Amino acid sequence: MTKIVLSVNAGSSSVKISVFSVASRGAEPRLLAEAQVNGLTAPPPQVDYRRNEDADGGKTTTMTTVYKDEPLDKISIGNDKKIASVETQDDAFAFLLRLFVDDPKLAAIGSHDDIAIATHRIVHGGDYTEPQIVVGDTYAHLEALNDLAPLHNAKSLEIVRSCLRQLPKATNVACFDSQFHATLPPHIRTYPIDPKIAKANMLRKYGFHGLSYAFITRAVADALGKTPEDTSIIALHLGSGASACAIRGGKSWDTSMGLTPLAGLPGATRSGSVDPSLVFHYASDVGRLAPASTSDLHISRAEEILNKESGWKALTGTTNFGAIAAAGADQPGHQLAFDLFVDRVCGFVGSYYVSLRGQVDALVFAGGIGERSDRLRRAVVEQCACLGFAMDEGANKEAAGHADGPVTDLTAKSGSQHKVLVCRTDEQLEMAREGSADERLWTS
Amino acid sequence: MTKIVLSVNAGSSSVKISVFSVASRGAEPRLLAEAQVNGLTAPPPQVDYRRNEDADGGKTTTMTTVYKDEPLDKISIGNDKKIASVETQDDAFAFLLRLFVDDPKLAAIGSHDDIAIATHRIVHGGDYTEPQIVVGDTYAHLEALNDLAPLHNAKSLEIVRSCLRQLPKATNVACFDSQFHATLPPHIRTYPIDPKIAKANMLRKYGFHGLSYAFITRAVADALGKTPEDTSIIALHLGSGASACAIRGGKSWDTSMGLTPLAGLPGATRSGSVDPSLVFHYASDVGRLAPASTSDLHISRAEEILNKESGWKALTGTTNFGAIAAAGADQPGHQLAFDLFVDRVCGFVGSYYVSLRGQVDALVFAGGIGERSDRLRRAVVEQCACLGFAMDEGANKEAAGHADGPVTDLTAKSGSQHKVLVCRTDEQLEMAREGSADERLWTS
Repeated sequence: MTKIVLSVNAGSSSVKISVFSVASRGAEPRLLAEAQVNGLTAPPPQVDYRRNEDADGGKTTTMTTVYKDEPLDKISIGNDKKIASVETQDDAFAFLLRLFVDDPKLAAIGSHDDIAIATHRIVHGGDYTEPQIVVGDTYAHLEALNDLAPLHNAKSLEIVRSCLRQLPKATNVACFDSQFHATLPPHIRTYPIDPKIAKANMLRKYGFHGLSYAFITRAVADALGKTPEDTSIIALHLGSGASACAIRGGKSWDTSMGLTPLAGLPGATRSGSVDPSLVFHYASDVGRLAPASTSDLHISRAEEILNKESGWKALTGTTNFGAIAAAGADQPGHQLAFDLFVDRVCGFVGSYYVSLRGQVDALVFAGGIGERSDRLRRAVVEQCACLGFAMDEGANKEAAGHADGPVTDLTAKSGSQHKVLVCRTDEQLEMAREGSADERLWTS
Repeated sequence: MTKIVLSVNAGSSSVKISVFSVASRGAEPRLLAEAQVNGLTAPPPQVDYRRNEDADGGKTTTMTTVYKDEPLDKISIGNDKKIASVETQDDAFAFLLRLFVDDPKLAAIGSHDDIAIATHRIVHGGDYTEPQIVVGDTYAHLEALNDLAPLHNAKSLEIVRSCLRQLPKATNVACFDSQFHATLPPHIRTYPIDPKIAKANMLRKYGFHGLSYAFITRAVADALGKTPEDTSIIALHLGSGASACAIRGGKSWDTSMGLTPLAGLPGATRSGSVDPSLVFHYASDVGRLAPASTSDLHISRAEEILNKESGWKALTGTTNFGAIAAAGADQPGHQLAFDLFVDRVCGFVGSYYVSLRGQVDALVFAGGIGERSDRLRRAVVEQCACLGFAMDEGANKEAAGHADGPVTDLTAKSGSQHKVLVCRTDEQLEMAREGSADERLWTS
């Protein structure tokens, strides 16, 4: 029997929900609608809402935009003229649920009780190797993981709480961005530090963006006509958070993020890997708690600096990588940030090429920057030409507009030893897929 | 006129002096003797002393061992039956000078006044791009650099002080392990952090082991029959401190160490690059000063943990990489440490291969591990086969015993697109060379 599955994703000032229908266990989730409240920390908040007009019909997906950047106070839903103020993520969650219930064209959700499963993206999953149904002790276990990634997990857990209260009949499932990397081999996931302390404090490489890499692995294998087990790729999820992943036989073999998402590539406000001594030379007393800390969440000033006050925003003043990539020679700071990012990305490509011993089916670009910046892709592939990658520049320029399936082939028509691909990754779909896979969700 | 040049190298519990004669400005330094006091922190200290028996004769170098691991209290020099106790580096320096002066077979040093130049290895040279004659303000400038690398520079400066006092007629020259890397391009040496703070606090990638890389570059260019300007290599200086360097046209293009020697590869007690958040999860209050700090030198507990309590010693209990490489399957900790090190080394080889766009003349192994561990070389070259490196296993096994010049060719007789070399690096010789090059040392 078809179940309605929500994929819920809480950011620092946003809540995003995608609505899927899943016809049976293991069936491909079908997108019915997606909505997002933005600007919770910069009021008034705004909403985006798109609905699939073919939801109940054939196999196509035709998304219609209902709202785009619409201030919440301009919207009336149902018989109300006014919307209660939306200030917290809990409010935003309630608002989005009401948007779905009150939309006559979204027939699948007539009431809250029509929602069978809510899947949640949790960044740090510790040693969890698969999604967890949130029952009994699970929530306490999830809270304990906050210590490992207080900057990243806390908002997600708030939404799980909202969901437990607002959708008491739904089953909540936690999906982890780290779980795809449970296959990292010991010599790669181990840090060369005291093993006793590493074990006691759970200090190892975990890796993140795993929902994206799981989606990419499956989509690329499909596009190449291979099984995932026979597919080895270097995947780049490049967005305001950026990482690289070496995928060997469909499984994560190495990835650039570490104990936390800070390690590896720089991001919009994140330094990525820097000399671990650096922060002690950056400011005095970086070990003290940051003002953003609470009694439950301990965030050092150092982690705040390196996660929130660094990256290309620090170098250029903007978090918009598109503007950085488009800048000319009159903006040397932008050029420096672009060149720096290309250098670090290519470093991981070279490193993973060797780690995979050259057995690489494809170099895959994904994420906001990976999917949209043809200039970034060109710079990376040009520098990696010595590894046998070559791209068709026409295909590269057109890649963004491509719509037939998630994977676009940019490989040069001749002379490339490996494929160069763009993958329109879809973490929300992956959450719905992984979060609805548990047998217990279908037998009860 | 020939000058006697000392190369002085102070470690945490040792002082090493090599005695060279330099016939004229720019002439190749000729080794006359080398001596080292070890065990200052684990008394009784011991001495090694070797003398070149052909020092005053032909062009060959025939080193004779005078002392090997000899406890100082067993030695009598000149007419004394007893040696004054040697506890500090200043004592050790005085002892070594006396050893040279009182050795009748080391005719070149009849008194302290025969020593014209003392060159000192200083790890962190900040923005210095060439050796500095220690006059006037230089010493104060060198002291200021201690803030950047308190764990690494302090001992060297103590010896400079000893030298200024004990050899008042000699000229002291500071040679920097960072200076070879002054050519790192901006997009590689910049950290993606606030540029104002980076500038004010001198936060960028500096790189180290530069004396070794300068020696390697020249020696490899010679061996290949090329000029350094036409030589591009990936060089690995692997010892208890380990780093990698991409050298493009004879100049440093990228290197694995960073603001301090902590970044990059793991070492005997050093973690190398880890998630910059890691140390905040390792112990509470890692920002506080370590017990080893003094009023002048501020060392955070975090830096102490990552520099002194990590690395393969933390994983295996030994600092001896030879024992780790020789271990069998019954020592899984050793195997893990070995595999981990190979993985990180190969990561840099792949990264630098791309950074040099495949224009690589040779992969060069140097340093205690790089020169002695055929198993390490085999594991690295095998993993890097996909980049076109192949090695002759017979040559690899015999490499350690090779004596004709510093460079040994291990390249496979066929099928390798690039050379694989071992270079017996010689930082002491490089110091004598660089430290005696200044025109002012020869005209006065």
